[in-house]
Amino acid sequence: MNYVVACMTYFNAGGNEVVVKARGRAISRAVDTIELLRRSFLKDLAIKQIRIGTQEVTRVEGERTNVSTIEIAVLKPPEGGKKRVDATSD
Amino acid sequence: MNYVVACMTYFNAGGNEVVVKARGRAISRAVDTIELLRRSFLKDLAIKQIRIGTQEVTRVEGERTNVSTIEIAVLKPPEGGKKRVDATSD
Repeated sequence: MNYVVACMTYFNAGGNEVVVKARGRAISRAVDTIELLRRSFLKDLAIKQIRIGTQEVTRVEGERTNVSTIEIAVLKPPEGGKKRVDATSD
Repeated sequence: MNYVVACMTYFNAGGNEVVVKARGRAISRAVDTIELLRRSFLKDLAIKQIRIGTQEVTRVEGERTNVSTIEIAVLKPPEGGKKRVDATSD
């Protein structure tokens, strides 16, 4: 919900594009953020692009693992601007 | 990993397109499935389309809630066929 508020604040300030990024288990939260935005606040929001990928992370113990990532770019039809909101965690 | 095996089995049988679907917390597992496939088994796998959405579900207690969904369609360059692999849970 905090991410939804962050996106709304940005759109209300005149921004028109937001990229929500997340990795690991937080991926579903990134999707929730966009869906909640579209369903409840900005029905005209368009999904510009959804990208998935892999990032190599080093854990505290020094072990290296791969973690999946997602980037969802959304566009609000009018105005200008661009911002990234990270919903990152693993 | 079971989903990766299911996809591989299908591709090895001559299929060329798989749609991995998931909802709720399992969304990250769907992304993991595709990323593991691409990274380890089928490096030429192309992402055809990624769609996100919302589904209304009725819980055991009769309560209705919204759950986010994802559908990732991947294509293996040659041959023919289509299959759905559901990594669904909420």
